[in-house]
Amino acid sequence: MAIATIDWAKGKVKLIDQTKLPEKLVYLYIDNVDDLWEAIKNLRVRGAPALGIAAGLGVILGIKDSRADSFSEFYKELKKAAGYIGTSRPTAVNLFWALRRMEQVCIENRDKSIAALKKILLREAKDIIREDKIICRSIGRNGAALIKSGDSILTHCNAGGLATADYGTALACFFEAKNQGKRIKIYADETRPLLQGSRLTAWELKQAQIPATLICDSMAGEVMKEGKIDKVVVGADRIAANGDTANKIGTYSVAVLAHSHNIPFYIAAPLSTIDFSISDGNKIPIEQRKPEEITNWFGKQIAPEGIDVYNPAFDVTPAKYIAGIITEKGIAKPPYRESLKRLCDRKK
Amino acid sequence: MAIATIDWAKGKVKLIDQTKLPEKLVYLYIDNVDDLWEAIKNLRVRGAPALGIAAGLGVILGIKDSRADSFSEFYKELKKAAGYIGTSRPTAVNLFWALRRMEQVCIENRDKSIAALKKILLREAKDIIREDKIICRSIGRNGAALIKSGDSILTHCNAGGLATADYGTALACFFEAKNQGKRIKIYADETRPLLQGSRLTAWELKQAQIPATLICDSMAGEVMKEGKIDKVVVGADRIAANGDTANKIGTYSVAVLAHSHNIPFYIAAPLSTIDFSISDGNKIPIEQRKPEEITNWFGKQIAPEGIDVYNPAFDVTPAKYIAGIITEKGIAKPPYRESLKRLCDRKK
Repeated sequence: MAIATIDWAKGKVKLIDQTKLPEKLVYLYIDNVDDLWEAIKNLRVRGAPALGIAAGLGVILGIKDSRADSFSEFYKELKKAAGYIGTSRPTAVNLFWALRRMEQVCIENRDKSIAALKKILLREAKDIIREDKIICRSIGRNGAALIKSGDSILTHCNAGGLATADYGTALACFFEAKNQGKRIKIYADETRPLLQGSRLTAWELKQAQIPATLICDSMAGEVMKEGKIDKVVVGADRIAANGDTANKIGTYSVAVLAHSHNIPFYIAAPLSTIDFSISDGNKIPIEQRKPEEITNWFGKQIAPEGIDVYNPAFDVTPAKYIAGIITEKGIAKPPYRESLKRLCDRKK
Repeated sequence: MAIATIDWAKGKVKLIDQTKLPEKLVYLYIDNVDDLWEAIKNLRVRGAPALGIAAGLGVILGIKDSRADSFSEFYKELKKAAGYIGTSRPTAVNLFWALRRMEQVCIENRDKSIAALKKILLREAKDIIREDKIICRSIGRNGAALIKSGDSILTHCNAGGLATADYGTALACFFEAKNQGKRIKIYADETRPLLQGSRLTAWELKQAQIPATLICDSMAGEVMKEGKIDKVVVGADRIAANGDTANKIGTYSVAVLAHSHNIPFYIAAPLSTIDFSISDGNKIPIEQRKPEEITNWFGKQIAPEGIDVYNPAFDVTPAKYIAGIITEKGIAKPPYRESLKRLCDRKK
């Protein structure tokens, strides 16, 4: 699997419209911040690392046609684009991390001409993509070391190539294990309401020719009870300093179930997903999404009109349920407050 | 809520086609065993007690036009109908319980004329319906005693009027609690793959004007963690002698999650759901259903072509996770091997 999920192509953001998968592989070419915001909001592009890339490229869309003739004017335009992109989805920290990184680079180069600044910023956005590809392969190698031939592994949502530039986090571990000749089998939760498991993860695993079985989210406990699961590996949208991890809704249930079946539960994520400014998971903002995601199905009403709905897009898994956090610099083990810090401080 | 889910009407089985809810309230009038088998198989009628009623009425459909002129010939026809109905769905024991009950009554009246036998059997099938209405109200009263005003209760799948003649098992407890003036709130799992929670339970609760919030199955853990759930009440398809309980897939996950959050988890079911011939849950046959229930929705493909699927319709919750089994004769408490036996032996 190395299909480009999101990239910069001829002055536009080229991305796979993930709402069309698995029926159709459709690319969108986006040339303005409004359309990018819509694509993020409606999950045409999703996954924490991919949102980081989208944010970096979004800043470029915001300033590429700038006619500013002073740094302050230019910076104001950049901040406006970044601020707007930041309103799209609140939970994945990579989005804000990328926006800050772009702002930082802009400030650091305030003495350059506007034309030069535009080039530097584009290089930075492309660097985020380039680095993501390298980081994901390192995550894959580190995670694959945990996987034994014969392992049967459960994953939730999509932490694959489609959630990153092209290779994934949790799925990178599976791709790499397969590359190493290990026989593995994956159970994929379908991941209601938006079915990233059945639509995206199942599609990626099929492309990669990794044996995969699709289940409903409610079946995770049963397959664990039947002894079908050796480990769980999922991605992350934001990791607090103590290791508490926000990920797609349902992850917390999977973690509790894994714990009660003595199955190790791992997070795979780049270090950019760690938010050291947040001491624990209670402080991670959780996006609430519209009821129609649950009450309607491709335009068909599947619940009575006017029923009350609770639809958090994420939940937080306490660190105590997490056996390890697989990053590009190694695997953090509990206690995470120390191990995550140590990994971040480590030289490449 | 007292809408007739399934009844005998002018020589036909009249039932609500539950696959059409909540969009349309459509009644089917079924006059032959083949159509009834199809209705059971495709969940037009479902829910353990309702399947018991369907089985009883199905036997009537099988023999009502019999031209047999001997008991042995008549009994053979009855056995043939019963045997066929028994192939529709394997897990809910009430179906087999009702078939056996009809066979038993037939044998007990072997000295009667065929015309008289037909009348006796119809009376028996109608008795199953009449008794179910009384039993469900008793379950409701017994369960309501556990519910405090202000309680917020999670339920999974549909154990309502639509799963019985007209009043429900788990939902009967909520209906009765409301009748007693208790303020309650229900969280309803949507219950993939066939969405009995969003389509049926949410619909019934709305009709009954009980405040209800619909969630995806994967959100059960999160609402528990947020302190939103005081207790869980669900139905059952078959209860082993030791209290292990088969119910809709996902129930086991809910039970483990409730346990880990110290939330009491109750089963509500008539005594006819207890299968004393089975010592524990491992021996309960679990129906496997077709992959398309997970990979397709209303004709739309939502997973890649040819993906492997695991689709058990039920799972078994070990007795250790069950705080009580609410029946028409009282609430069984652990150890269930003794308490269930005691309740069954108790006079009305």
